[in-house]
Amino acid sequence: MTPAQQLEQTLHREIPMAQAMGIRAESYDGNRLCLAAPLAPNINHKCTAFGGSLYALAVLCGWGLLHLKLEEAGLHRHIVIQHADIDYLLPVAEDMQAECSVDEAALGRFMATLQKHGRARLALEVVIGRNNQPAVRFSGRYVVHN
Amino acid sequence: MTPAQQLEQTLHREIPMAQAMGIRAESYDGNRLCLAAPLAPNINHKCTAFGGSLYALAVLCGWGLLHLKLEEAGLHRHIVIQHADIDYLLPVAEDMQAECSVDEAALGRFMATLQKHGRARLALEVVIGRNNQPAVRFSGRYVVHN
Repeated sequence: MTPAQQLEQTLHREIPMAQAMGIRAESYDGNRLCLAAPLAPNINHKCTAFGGSLYALAVLCGWGLLHLKLEEAGLHRHIVIQHADIDYLLPVAEDMQAECSVDEAALGRFMATLQKHGRARLALEVVIGRNNQPAVRFSGRYVVHN
Repeated sequence: MTPAQQLEQTLHREIPMAQAMGIRAESYDGNRLCLAAPLAPNINHKCTAFGGSLYALAVLCGWGLLHLKLEEAGLHRHIVIQHADIDYLLPVAEDMQAECSVDEAALGRFMATLQKHGRARLALEVVIGRNNQPAVRFSGRYVVHN
């Protein structure tokens, strides 16, 4: 089973809303994670993706990427979202795809702080696109602790 | 049927995720709307409320209050969330309760702009509490247009 498949199982097992949303972990190449979800269960009254579903997909994309990086480092830690902001730039009227990549230098500083203090914060950006244009920009600050 | 009950029906009919989350419109007094949701369908791996569910409840609380104020004014308009930020202050390990009230002066300016230009923005704050302390603070900017 690939790390992406393991992550998808974890999300579905531990977060009922991830299952209700039909979230899939599409790909992970060691740096970039792509999560997707079908429009149907996440639709709103305007036949576009519900803003709450777009947020939930984005927050889980950042969470998932950090979870994978910690697993690779052999660290099993709590990951908590502390703050986020989100801009809705375009309506999304098809299946949703979220992407998050990690800056290796920022990740290195984060891991060093975590090893030293048992607690560290990392900011992650997630984009949900529509025809190669950003439709949603999400920025989340995650806290990891022992 | 009370306005709160009508709003709950609208949310469940038009947004499948509101139904999956079990959202209830608890009360509305003409100024303050309270939406609630049970913990079970919205739980995470730490047995507290999933951050995406807390956000979705908050964004719908602001949306619902604006929807009710527009209905009272006889206006049937599109309401779109444009930007939001959210702070997670405390974990929520019980059923979630979100509250949003509207500042009458800001609402008056918003309604005047909407009448004049056919489009207006309103910022709304939503708080999800835990034992009378704020656990989540949400701030959303909503756009209404014809």
